[in-house]
Amino acid sequence: MSQSMFAQGLMPSPANHEPLTPLSFLDRTADVFPDRVAIVHGDMRQSWCETRKRCRRLASALVRRGVKPLDVVAVLAPNTPAMLEAHFGVPLAGAVINAINVRLDADAVSFILRHGEAKVLLVDREFASLAAAALETVPHRPLVVDIADALAPTGPTVGAHDCEAYEALLAEGDEDFEGVWPEDEQAPIALNYTSGTTGDPKGVVASHRGTFMMSVLQMTNWPLPRHPTYLWVLPMFHANGWCFTWAISAAAGTHVCLRKVAPAQVAQALDRHGVDHFCAAPTVMAGLAAERVQVPAGRTVRVLTAGSPPPATVLQAVTELGFSVDHVYGITEALGTPVSCVPQTTWAQMDADARARVQARQGVRAALLEGLQVADPETGVPVPRDGRTPGELMLRGNSIMKGYLKNPQATARAFEGGWFRTGDVAVVHPDGYFQIVDRSKDVIISGGENISSVEVEDLLHAHAAVLHAAVVAMPDDKWGEVPCAFIELRPGRHPAEEEIIAFARERMAHFKCPRRVVFTELPKTGTGKIQKFKLREIAGSQAAITRLAEPARSGE
Amino acid sequence: MSQSMFAQGLMPSPANHEPLTPLSFLDRTADVFPDRVAIVHGDMRQSWCETRKRCRRLASALVRRGVKPLDVVAVLAPNTPAMLEAHFGVPLAGAVINAINVRLDADAVSFILRHGEAKVLLVDREFASLAAAALETVPHRPLVVDIADALAPTGPTVGAHDCEAYEALLAEGDEDFEGVWPEDEQAPIALNYTSGTTGDPKGVVASHRGTFMMSVLQMTNWPLPRHPTYLWVLPMFHANGWCFTWAISAAAGTHVCLRKVAPAQVAQALDRHGVDHFCAAPTVMAGLAAERVQVPAGRTVRVLTAGSPPPATVLQAVTELGFSVDHVYGITEALGTPVSCVPQTTWAQMDADARARVQARQGVRAALLEGLQVADPETGVPVPRDGRTPGELMLRGNSIMKGYLKNPQATARAFEGGWFRTGDVAVVHPDGYFQIVDRSKDVIISGGENISSVEVEDLLHAHAAVLHAAVVAMPDDKWGEVPCAFIELRPGRHPAEEEIIAFARERMAHFKCPRRVVFTELPKTGTGKIQKFKLREIAGSQAAITRLAEPARSGE
Repeated sequence: MSQSMFAQGLMPSPANHEPLTPLSFLDRTADVFPDRVAIVHGDMRQSWCETRKRCRRLASALVRRGVKPLDVVAVLAPNTPAMLEAHFGVPLAGAVINAINVRLDADAVSFILRHGEAKVLLVDREFASLAAAALETVPHRPLVVDIADALAPTGPTVGAHDCEAYEALLAEGDEDFEGVWPEDEQAPIALNYTSGTTGDPKGVVASHRGTFMMSVLQMTNWPLPRHPTYLWVLPMFHANGWCFTWAISAAAGTHVCLRKVAPAQVAQALDRHGVDHFCAAPTVMAGLAAERVQVPAGRTVRVLTAGSPPPATVLQAVTELGFSVDHVYGITEALGTPVSCVPQTTWAQMDADARARVQARQGVRAALLEGLQVADPETGVPVPRDGRTPGELMLRGNSIMKGYLKNPQATARAFEGGWFRTGDVAVVHPDGYFQIVDRSKDVIISGGENISSVEVEDLLHAHAAVLHAAVVAMPDDKWGEVPCAFIELRPGRHPAEEEIIAFARERMAHFKCPRRVVFTELPKTGTGKIQKFKLREIAGSQAAITRLAEPARSGE
Repeated sequence: MSQSMFAQGLMPSPANHEPLTPLSFLDRTADVFPDRVAIVHGDMRQSWCETRKRCRRLASALVRRGVKPLDVVAVLAPNTPAMLEAHFGVPLAGAVINAINVRLDADAVSFILRHGEAKVLLVDREFASLAAAALETVPHRPLVVDIADALAPTGPTVGAHDCEAYEALLAEGDEDFEGVWPEDEQAPIALNYTSGTTGDPKGVVASHRGTFMMSVLQMTNWPLPRHPTYLWVLPMFHANGWCFTWAISAAAGTHVCLRKVAPAQVAQALDRHGVDHFCAAPTVMAGLAAERVQVPAGRTVRVLTAGSPPPATVLQAVTELGFSVDHVYGITEALGTPVSCVPQTTWAQMDADARARVQARQGVRAALLEGLQVADPETGVPVPRDGRTPGELMLRGNSIMKGYLKNPQATARAFEGGWFRTGDVAVVHPDGYFQIVDRSKDVIISGGENISSVEVEDLLHAHAAVLHAAVVAMPDDKWGEVPCAFIELRPGRHPAEEEIIAFARERMAHFKCPRRVVFTELPKTGTGKIQKFKLREIAGSQAAITRLAEPARSGE
């Protein structure tokens, strides 16, 4: 009876239901703040009114060139105005934006263009040769558009014939074009390839609803003030800049473009453009600390950092320089960073070491992420909050991807049990903050068993001869992967490989023990982080291992 | 082909799709900030952990008492902890919260209880007699729950027998109850009665999706910092406190309750509790200005004000006292205030008069409101931006109500043409900011309360001497507006002004009664329609009223 009372004449109507989409932000900001600066690029300033016109021109021109709803339009460009314009112009054509990582090699770019079936490819001139090389192996050549960015290094375009100039394309379009809006908020808006841990990149599909929700999540979780001046340090090809392409636009902010990230250029942007917000990897923060980039007096610059926990020394250094850092956690499949290490008031009373430890945690879910758990991947039972029991980090909510393109098996695996499985291994502390103890790539899967590389490393550190140890996966015909240990020895110590292996076998399950031990100096980043990817490369090649191992042995 | 590419295995799943609901905010805040203060009430402090337990107890107890999904649970209470708890506890039972205006008379409360078919009524002790009187004419008595708020004046409960105590009810419930969550985000969460312009109040139905969107709209449009300390000046029974019941919870803020709004009590809350945000009608701001309520040094208190434009003198006075005021526009059917007079940087250079003029405009849509137009109500064509041509203000978007309960005709009328028609008449200035020139034909806003002129007219027509009655707003220093009645008498009848006023006061809530009654022939159009705009002009001038009133009196 009550059911029927609320069922009468209360169905969604055009007045009260409209597909959620971040596209709506452009119109509102251009309507309300037409003269505010939308984009800064070197000496160029572009208003929101002009930016909307250009986005509409792009959309209109793409439609006139035959782009159909849900066609893919790829972009290979650094953080330029054209890249930002594409984030509105492409979806306004009803198409799906595929921003490609410019650091990939030609084979990977080719794979993405083929797999995503891109109909159009916008290419910044700096990456013309990369695009040309990639296109050689793409059977159906997309329409290629040459972006002659004002600040790009001069260079070749992608094949002088059969290539349109970006500005000429825009000139074909109608600046009053209203766009092709999604009829269903679940329609895709973006396609982002993630370098999977195994095999080919996977195409993460994001919906209009999902990116809308992540945009608003970012606005509320950081939280953004009115009119932020945002510096594009984080590449827009990383999950659409964690949706800040759209979120900063919703906040009627200013996008300050940046082709190359170097401390001097960041410093210049802070001085010249009044930048007050940016996102950056900890390595960028380390660079700012090393160069002593000082925030101009009287201001605070807010920074989101993700990727790995910011080292305590870096955190302290940049804080003293005037940066206010929030540590967040993200993953392409979540469309951005729905998790943050939001501070508790009690932390202010901690000593520096204790505070650094809690700030290194990945944290807790944002108010707009519906679910987060660290659970046993088999049973789905959440781990206890003991700071010790590892489980898999799982997320759930409206800002999670739709799935992997043309890969229903991988999608089903990723969503098994009703949660998105990040593959990251974490523990939960008594206060509910979780901490990643082993990035998914650091999990070695041997004969169906997961091995935590950190666990093996911890054991090896107990050996008196070991200064540093790093354990990675080594391919193995029988077991799939087996652990391979790289060890930096204490001065004067020269144990044999067999001695280390025996030491491990006495102390842990045999399947977890290193099959190979290589004595060598460990490759490190500027901030002292061990570059495991280099070790994985070495472990992937028997020849490389042998090369590295021999000198050590000969020195015995 | 592309369509099919994106159609493979990309359907919504539990991992990436969950019904949007503001209920999710409670769990997240209680999980992440269990020990932060959720509610302050006098000397009482209640943590988020405890608040969640109590909301869950309420939900669990309601379910055990037989409350079914979509049953209506009404609340008649001022801004107390119980009122806030009901905003989570009632929907967590799967039910719909109906917060009733405590300023209504028994007849109106009775109408609401009957029309909304309330199964449960929670009553603050201060309003026990009002509830008892209302219940006399409700055929199916709901379960009545007596809220013995710690700060309520001592008084009777609603019928000592057949009445549960709120705390006893909570004790019946399970503090670990996870709740009955909506399966469809379009499901109703709240029912708010608005004093319609004609006849009986209309029941505005709000959905989980709509209130979620309005909560997030408030968070992004004001925008809210982390952990705001919010003072409940605005009644929660006004459109669920414009959704700040949920928005402040999402921001992990503190709700500071307030039973009665008086400048001294607001001042005390600012001092004692560190309040930094509240919403208030311009009359409240005027009171703060008159009493010179000073914001403690070094702080700024942010205020949203709506209802009528804040007078320039009041705005200037409270700004000097340390308040930072944003002028917004709302309407119950929009679930809150999706429009605001967001400042432009150019305004800082204006002289005080010009700035006051632009600040008095209602403004522009928030980034999360999908559409706003001022258009000809017949043709739907937007009016020119000339600051002169009047049109009807129309809104569109995901935070608009589902419709009016059991009134599909009124719903259809309100949504005609795909827009929600506010009934407010506005002009649009060249900068795109709109300004209301004529409040919804017939609504008088007095001390933040909407009064339907038609309702007052209907009552006056019941007086034997009244032939025609027309009620319009008259400016008032304290209340903003008060009702002024123009009455055309039946031949040979000559009641005194006081008699008419007394007649009204016996029959309806006092705030709705005319302050002035002018006996005169009513100006009419050729078709016999009363020309209210002429009466508003008269009511706007004391001199004109006096001119008109005197002859009538002298004729007595």
